[in-house]
Amino acid sequence: MSREFDILCSQKSNVIDNFLSTNPIFVCTISYTETSQIPGITFAGANPDVIKYTSPADSEFLFHGRCFSIPGVPATPDGIPTPALLTRTALLLGKIPCIVVNSGSKIAPKVPYVSFGINYGKNIQHEAALQLFETQQAFDYGNVLGNQLSKSNDLVVLGESIPGGTTTALGVLTGLGVDANYKMSSSMPTNPHDLKIRIVQEAIKKYNLSEIKDPFKIVSLLGDPMIPAVAGIATGVIQSGSRVMLAGGTQMAAVLALMSSIKIPFNNICIGTTSYVTQDKNSDLDFLVRSISSDVPILSVNPGLDKSTKNGLLMYDKGVVKEGVGSGGALLTLLLKLGKSLDKDIFLGKLEEEYEKNIENIVV
Amino acid sequence: MSREFDILCSQKSNVIDNFLSTNPIFVCTISYTETSQIPGITFAGANPDVIKYTSPADSEFLFHGRCFSIPGVPATPDGIPTPALLTRTALLLGKIPCIVVNSGSKIAPKVPYVSFGINYGKNIQHEAALQLFETQQAFDYGNVLGNQLSKSNDLVVLGESIPGGTTTALGVLTGLGVDANYKMSSSMPTNPHDLKIRIVQEAIKKYNLSEIKDPFKIVSLLGDPMIPAVAGIATGVIQSGSRVMLAGGTQMAAVLALMSSIKIPFNNICIGTTSYVTQDKNSDLDFLVRSISSDVPILSVNPGLDKSTKNGLLMYDKGVVKEGVGSGGALLTLLLKLGKSLDKDIFLGKLEEEYEKNIENIVV
Repeated sequence: MSREFDILCSQKSNVIDNFLSTNPIFVCTISYTETSQIPGITFAGANPDVIKYTSPADSEFLFHGRCFSIPGVPATPDGIPTPALLTRTALLLGKIPCIVVNSGSKIAPKVPYVSFGINYGKNIQHEAALQLFETQQAFDYGNVLGNQLSKSNDLVVLGESIPGGTTTALGVLTGLGVDANYKMSSSMPTNPHDLKIRIVQEAIKKYNLSEIKDPFKIVSLLGDPMIPAVAGIATGVIQSGSRVMLAGGTQMAAVLALMSSIKIPFNNICIGTTSYVTQDKNSDLDFLVRSISSDVPILSVNPGLDKSTKNGLLMYDKGVVKEGVGSGGALLTLLLKLGKSLDKDIFLGKLEEEYEKNIENIVV
Repeated sequence: MSREFDILCSQKSNVIDNFLSTNPIFVCTISYTETSQIPGITFAGANPDVIKYTSPADSEFLFHGRCFSIPGVPATPDGIPTPALLTRTALLLGKIPCIVVNSGSKIAPKVPYVSFGINYGKNIQHEAALQLFETQQAFDYGNVLGNQLSKSNDLVVLGESIPGGTTTALGVLTGLGVDANYKMSSSMPTNPHDLKIRIVQEAIKKYNLSEIKDPFKIVSLLGDPMIPAVAGIATGVIQSGSRVMLAGGTQMAAVLALMSSIKIPFNNICIGTTSYVTQDKNSDLDFLVRSISSDVPILSVNPGLDKSTKNGLLMYDKGVVKEGVGSGGALLTLLLKLGKSLDKDIFLGKLEEEYEKNIENIVV
């Protein structure tokens, strides 16, 4: 019996058709924030010493199905493999092109990448994440890139890989006036809301936020290098008349908040993610997005891993790892390219094939 | 009276139609070779101290119509502006997207660029241009990029900016067994053939070429970082079933020679250049390409600058600057996207507008 994927939408379901695409492209922005070194903040990388390799390794995995910067692949301490596995599978099935943007990764990936020429983000608990010119540059370079991509591609899908990124996203949302406490998602089984809030509040009390009018300054103090880069690319795409999907969870609300604060119109933008995020009881993406704009639909999909025979994939269905490396958006893009019709078993078959080839049989 | 552009072709004219394109992309690979510091080798940059800025400045000009790494724009000592002006105009008129690849530029451009992660080329007169792993990496990263671009784009057009590049191209051609003496083009009014030949011969006598079987080793010893990068991108495009245009003059013969030596099939590749190159009495692109393969057509076009009112553009029609930054190929791509029909005055009008806006009225 055929099990078709269902695309869920936070608005009327005909909105989904606005994002049908014959020629999409996937862009993975990799970044690093030293905030990820705070104990208890992230599971994206099995131990603190290797967290800085997670993003470059993810991007290597997207292109090659294996990593060069680390042995094995990025995984949680429980051995759940990086969601880049889902992303890669969706891109392969859809023959969807992929480019990697390095906006402040601490380690350069061993694949071709678009350089935005800025440093990694500092620990916001102690100091400003970025210098103002870096935040501006990440946005401006993103704008140029988005403008160029929009000439070839009718849908530009923006994923990210930045360990610790929900904490800096909380910083930006809070700094821009969005109540995001207890609404951010997490890569960890028990969402460390109180820790994230404490870090952001400690960061904020160093500054007089009410006097800071420039949203780029807010991002520089409380954010990370991913947020202005993705906001810049999305802005370039929208300003050139094409369409954009922010492929990620609650971090993408921070991207939206920055774009909203500089008055970018939201008529051709959606968020695309997994149902693990939209149905997560411990975070609230829908609330965050609605706080910023009522114009931005959230598309989501259940990747259908409940029928998997692989433990590392079944764990996804339990909601342990919910999103990352644009995996939900990549799967949605595959569906949007295929006219919304795909049997879950076709995706699962290819996913398990990639899992067997690139993860299960790799001796780490 | 309408003055239509004519596309010239070294093979039967119906071959041109094999490269008609609805969704082309232009890739500008920027590189540096210390060989360019040898006095008398290049005019691409008014004086030796600024030659290293020529390529990044060219790529900045493509995106923004102005340069950030230097005041003004790259120009010959006579004030003839960079051919990036023609390239930019063609890309703007055709809404053709552009990306910049940095394969060994000495200076990083102040625009987003795809990093191939390798060093600039050394002076081949004194030492190997590149380490073998760098040459291989430039090719491999190019291959990944070409593979991705071919998923979005039905024609990938590869231009270059590397001052001194015809000398290193002569090195590679000679090393790979192609008789290229007195056949290379030049950015200078008097083509310094004897100087180039002497440099290459001095370089070669340090090695026992007959014992070197690996063409990548030849490129490492006698070439530059542009050649393996462009060969890699072209190979990735061809292997993915799309089509490629090498947008340049005699340097592109060195790219072809490398691809031929590793047995890449030549069914979907052409060279695209200006008629200034194909009709140049002091070089012989046609001979070089035929020496490598009879399967590769050379498309060329006269940019029609004889009617310009601007001295800096009229000088092109005198054949002083003949090619660069893929200008001939970019104009051909515009024509191929427009079904081969365009009035020369439309191009000239836009070109002079860009000239007035970005060059004539800029105080350097």
